Amino acid sequence: MKYRDQTLPTAERVRDLLGRMTLAEKAGQLIQPFGWTCYERKADGSVEMTEAFKTRVAQGGIGSLYGTLRADPWTGVTLETGLSPEEGAKLINQMQAYAIQESRLGIPILFCEECSHGHMAIGSTVFPVPLAIGSTWNPELYHEMCRAVALETRSQGGAATCSPVLDVVRDPRWGRTEECFAEDPYLVAEMGVQAIRGLQGHGLDRDDAILATVKHFAAYGSSEGGRNSAAVHMGPRELHEVDLLPFRKAVEAGARSVMTAYNEIDGVPCTTNRYLLQDVLRDQWGFDGFVITDCGALGMLVSGHNTADRADKAVAQALIAGIDMEMSGEMFEEHLLSAIDRGLIYESDLDRAAARVLEMKFTLGLFDRPFVDPDRARQVIGCSEHRDLAKKVADESIILLKNDAHTLPLSKEIGSIAVIGPNADAPYNQLGDYTSPQPKGAIVTVLEGIRAKLGGEAERVLYAPGCRIKGDSREGFPLALECAAKADAVVMVIGGSSARDFGEGTIDLKTGASVVTDDPWNDMECGEGIDRSTLNLLGVQLELVQEVHKLGKPLIVVYINGRPIAEPWIVEHADAIVEAWYPGQEGGHAVADMLFGDVNPSGRLTISIPKHVGQLPVYYYKRRTRGKRYLETDFNAQYPFGYGLSYSEFEYSNLQVEPAVISADEEAVVTVDVTNISDVAGAEVVQLYITDMAASLTRPEKSLKGFHKISLQPGEAKKVSFSVGREQLEFVSADLTRIVEEGDFSLLVGPHSESYMTATLKVTTS
Amino acid sequence: MKYRDQTLPTAERVRDLLGRMTLAEKAGQLIQPFGWTCYERKADGSVEMTEAFKTRVAQGGIGSLYGTLRADPWTGVTLETGLSPEEGAKLINQMQAYAIQESRLGIPILFCEECSHGHMAIGSTVFPVPLAIGSTWNPELYHEMCRAVALETRSQGGAATCSPVLDVVRDPRWGRTEECFAEDPYLVAEMGVQAIRGLQGHGLDRDDAILATVKHFAAYGSSEGGRNSAAVHMGPRELHEVDLLPFRKAVEAGARSVMTAYNEIDGVPCTTNRYLLQDVLRDQWGFDGFVITDCGALGMLVSGHNTADRADKAVAQALIAGIDMEMSGEMFEEHLLSAIDRGLIYESDLDRAAARVLEMKFTLGLFDRPFVDPDRARQVIGCSEHRDLAKKVADESIILLKNDAHTLPLSKEIGSIAVIGPNADAPYNQLGDYTSPQPKGAIVTVLEGIRAKLGGEAERVLYAPGCRIKGDSREGFPLALECAAKADAVVMVIGGSSARDFGEGTIDLKTGASVVTDDPWNDMECGEGIDRSTLNLLGVQLELVQEVHKLGKPLIVVYINGRPIAEPWIVEHADAIVEAWYPGQEGGHAVADMLFGDVNPSGRLTISIPKHVGQLPVYYYKRRTRGKRYLETDFNAQYPFGYGLSYSEFEYSNLQVEPAVISADEEAVVTVDVTNISDVAGAEVVQLYITDMAASLTRPEKSLKGFHKISLQPGEAKKVSFSVGREQLEFVSADLTRIVEEGDFSLLVGPHSESYMTATLKVTTS
Repeated sequence: MKYRDQTLPTAERVRDLLGRMTLAEKAGQLIQPFGWTCYERKADGSVEMTEAFKTRVAQGGIGSLYGTLRADPWTGVTLETGLSPEEGAKLINQMQAYAIQESRLGIPILFCEECSHGHMAIGSTVFPVPLAIGSTWNPELYHEMCRAVALETRSQGGAATCSPVLDVVRDPRWGRTEECFAEDPYLVAEMGVQAIRGLQGHGLDRDDAILATVKHFAAYGSSEGGRNSAAVHMGPRELHEVDLLPFRKAVEAGARSVMTAYNEIDGVPCTTNRYLLQDVLRDQWGFDGFVITDCGALGMLVSGHNTADRADKAVAQALIAGIDMEMSGEMFEEHLLSAIDRGLIYESDLDRAAARVLEMKFTLGLFDRPFVDPDRARQVIGCSEHRDLAKKVADESIILLKNDAHTLPLSKEIGSIAVIGPNADAPYNQLGDYTSPQPKGAIVTVLEGIRAKLGGEAERVLYAPGCRIKGDSREGFPLALECAAKADAVVMVIGGSSARDFGEGTIDLKTGASVVTDDPWNDMECGEGIDRSTLNLLGVQLELVQEVHKLGKPLIVVYINGRPIAEPWIVEHADAIVEAWYPGQEGGHAVADMLFGDVNPSGRLTISIPKHVGQLPVYYYKRRTRGKRYLETDFNAQYPFGYGLSYSEFEYSNLQVEPAVISADEEAVVTVDVTNISDVAGAEVVQLYITDMAASLTRPEKSLKGFHKISLQPGEAKKVSFSVGREQLEFVSADLTRIVEEGDFSLLVGPHSESYMTATLKVTTS
Repeated sequence: MKYRDQTLPTAERVRDLLGRMTLAEKAGQLIQPFGWTCYERKADGSVEMTEAFKTRVAQGGIGSLYGTLRADPWTGVTLETGLSPEEGAKLINQMQAYAIQESRLGIPILFCEECSHGHMAIGSTVFPVPLAIGSTWNPELYHEMCRAVALETRSQGGAATCSPVLDVVRDPRWGRTEECFAEDPYLVAEMGVQAIRGLQGHGLDRDDAILATVKHFAAYGSSEGGRNSAAVHMGPRELHEVDLLPFRKAVEAGARSVMTAYNEIDGVPCTTNRYLLQDVLRDQWGFDGFVITDCGALGMLVSGHNTADRADKAVAQALIAGIDMEMSGEMFEEHLLSAIDRGLIYESDLDRAAARVLEMKFTLGLFDRPFVDPDRARQVIGCSEHRDLAKKVADESIILLKNDAHTLPLSKEIGSIAVIGPNADAPYNQLGDYTSPQPKGAIVTVLEGIRAKLGGEAERVLYAPGCRIKGDSREGFPLALECAAKADAVVMVIGGSSARDFGEGTIDLKTGASVVTDDPWNDMECGEGIDRSTLNLLGVQLELVQEVHKLGKPLIVVYINGRPIAEPWIVEHADAIVEAWYPGQEGGHAVADMLFGDVNPSGRLTISIPKHVGQLPVYYYKRRTRGKRYLETDFNAQYPFGYGLSYSEFEYSNLQVEPAVISADEEAVVTVDVTNISDVAGAEVVQLYITDMAASLTRPEKSLKGFHKISLQPGEAKKVSFSVGREQLEFVSADLTRIVEEGDFSLLVGPHSESYMTATLKVTTS
């Protein structure tokens, strides 16, 4: 059979295979059931495929399985019922063999896994969340991380992943803020490109590469009120300029799988938006992969969006709009064939979608090399190199927001230190959403990191949880205050949590010991589906800080959380403030290294920290027209986009633009000298923003168009340069094409979006 | 000269006149300088035209003057320097005579005045603000009010007005919330149509009619973050469905003047939006009047929107886009002719705009009957009929939000009552923005209304201001608590203020006497340019309520304010809550009548009252897809759109749709029986909402499509009916046309947007 011939072009193999398939087999390629339901661990410890899985294989096959190795409270897969890396690889081999051998045409399954910040499987490395990754401003480092994630995932047989998230987050009330890189489209695009390159590596058929899926297409980060999946109010120009940019760049970089967003835009659900899925994605951008829905999105067409009054109509709408696969697959599984029977779609619609899926399977080498080596999985997953990489990403992601009177770094000679707060020693609270269960000891908390840093003398590190993330219990206050009173400095580790209930229980506030509670959402206040209407600390955390502050000790606040916190009192009264987001499994070491100066902080904000929820939206990429101010406060962020302190001090000088006048097709080079004028080595993120002084459409006051993260020894100076040409100067015109207009542009170069030197570039038409 | 011949058609007169005009004279027709700068009162009390005015007449003439009779702190015109009605009429006659006699062609001036809620001139009747007018749900009553406003304005020579505001307000942080009728496009449209009919009366050339100006075109009520003039994020379908609807209806009703909005939509400033000004307004809707900018909007093109790097380019952009007149006129005055010189525009562009302005002046009869009768102005302005009408509008606008255990109405036999709060006796605080200075005694405060109600026994009505709207002074608390302690019930009149500084000073908190302060923004926390980042009561108002509440007296909270207040504590603890918005000059009587049961409340909310600012946006017209809820609270309003209590109790029954199946071009009739099952006569607002169960685009969960305000005697029942046809069932399709699709529609009939009976209507295609 031709399609088995590895020497033939993929297109020919696809054509041949498709010609042999039944309707049911074609429909089967368009579904992606939940993979973790396809196996179960028996009483004797063995792992077996379920009958449901076998039935599906028999009834036409399975295009893809979602999250076969996923483990978390949502799937119900635990450390006990789930699989070790080696077991995972073996199971996937077994399932793949079954699918190939027990089906008529031997079509392999595409195993798609969650890898938001590391593969969401037991034993895999847990990296910092995307918001922290963005804060590194180091796309190359993220590229390395993606290589590691791809290796860990593919080694178990996962050949595709549901990441990266390329949503531009514009409302921090949204629980998925942590899953996004930034509020800025350029920065998201830079990270997105590295995700594609890093995950897909040197070829999709390689054993260290996985198919990336860019999501959520589109504008999911601008839902009304920060409410997950709510309607998006946005015109086409903004859509193209802001939310589509990262997707376009990712497609240019080789993205071949796109997941649609739950939300609608101006009345059209993204899942049935043919303009986006065909005209823009394929016709304009040349995308040639496949498009998958988000989980349950087809059901929303009938109940939610209500663009269809019957399931088969919804299925037809989506397929015709350009959907090739349904995540979960329930609607396609039940209604695709009846939609054909009723004439709502044609077999050719099915062919088109199935061909796209099959083409990707050929491209991934699944037909030709369907199996993986379980030994390799055991070796590479969670290996020390990846652990080091997780540490490095965390190191570079942590943001120093305030540091009065050189409170930080702390001296390792300090007599004693009190580590206080609900996030000081809560492993899951520092990992973010989309995290698998962790064996004891896999995660280094801040308390552990500080203890490790200060060596074995237990009495030097005093610990008390003080309170919980939520709830009004103050029973932990006395112990916390007692610890703080004894210490020479206080590190308060507070914030939020995206930890689902892993059965680890909570903490006894009086002793710090873990206790089990049946409150399933103990600390969780962030993550998918957990949107907030305030940006304040919950519970009695602020009160605890205020009580500790009264003791007059140096007070360092470390936030571990998934979205900006607006607490003006802390801004005013803490001596130092650190934003660590969810720093991953090595987060405790990273925070400790940073607190004690072994790592010089180099993270920078990729999301504006508002002063109050009532200011929203607060993002730097705004128009010049925005009224006067609010009566109670201004429109400005507490800490602006791009902001972050260092233990070093950097000086900017000698900003030059050469040439100062260019045509629209030429390039200028902007250079600036950056000098480390301190006696501490450190890294600076040199940022370029551009202001279009006048244009035929309104433009943002400034927009990021380049950045370089550079390391500087004490006294060292470096010249940093940026190219400025069409790509930096263009904007989306009235007819949705990208144009460069003549006129003056201000080039702003500096350490963050509110601090910069300015030069002018003139663009002429000739 | 032909253009003077009243027997000729207007178009011919315009053509003839235009043919005689110089460039400068044509440009002169396109400006609207500030009218109050054209006169001054001399030391001897006489009123004279200024040289600046005469110079403008000499230099090409004046198309229109803005706010010649406007008086307020912004203009600097006071009760002393401003004009009585008779003086105003005389001045305008004098200016008109000068313009006609001293210019080459004798072209009269179009005097345009502010009439947001009554003519903003000294002595004119001050009606409740539009948000209160909307709350009446009585368009016919508003029609009557507009007739009165037109009469008062035209009697002084004002021939045009800058109202109505047809913005659909979607964010109560916005300071101009009070100037809008509603958050719902249908309700705004219903009011807008009556504004056109009422203001323009039986013919624009009649002496009791003025040219209405619909504003702000468009989407000004959806600015980002509720920030005045900030960018609007909105797609074209929502724009047509929501924000353009009231304008389209107003044009259909005869609107012939449109003012553009300051804001941009998706990158295009409304002031240069040719799609809106030509394609939609003129080509699709057949509008044949003229378009004016908002004040200073052309300057924003150069500094703000930055769509032009030079003033002459901005002027050219606007003129070409379809602007016919500039409010203020500074940019047109200085740059129109040089834009022609530079070839940016042609004389024909000027001709088109000037012709539109001149045509309106002919239509208004200004060429043929340019003068008014000052005696008539004196008689009709502020007459008792209009005062009665202001009272009636206030009566119908006040909304009873809570009334536990029949706290209200109060008995007139009550021993004593404490009237407490900063808005109990602050005349300007109950009038809203766009209000002229008021002679002593012109305004009836709530304190005065209650005193009048209870007769002369001063000891029965105890008064204390308690605190100010803003600021943390509690020095008025003791007196307030002393009054409350003595009384049998406490009415707390609190809220906000849009009162600019009229030099009336503030209140001595210890005595209640007025004192003068040099704080120019003493109480003002609402009105144009005063946007808020919270929806809480400011200052110590809540604390005052809480202190009073401790006394255990029946506690009635009356809000006087310009935007929703979110204070859950008051919702929970007050015995009764009344929302009066800014009820106008007769507001005190209206509140008193309502509190004591002489008027049965019949106002209903036209804007949702949120629970917290962090829930925004909160409006009933939302999509079904909106996530789960916030962690801290749900997405629902505290008090929903359409809500309001009555002293009566109404029962809905027997909902019927006839026929239950129609084609898209047929109509069904929905009927419901509403019975007053109480022993108090009252009025109910019967509301019809429609839900499109499935459509090719997403639809709001429900949208208002009809309402009837009916009066019912005790025990009386009425059958209320609504027609449902194309207009109620259509929506804006993907190609921006309006279509009706087959399928099921739910018809929801009830007392407000969250309480209704449901029937189904099926629409078939055949």
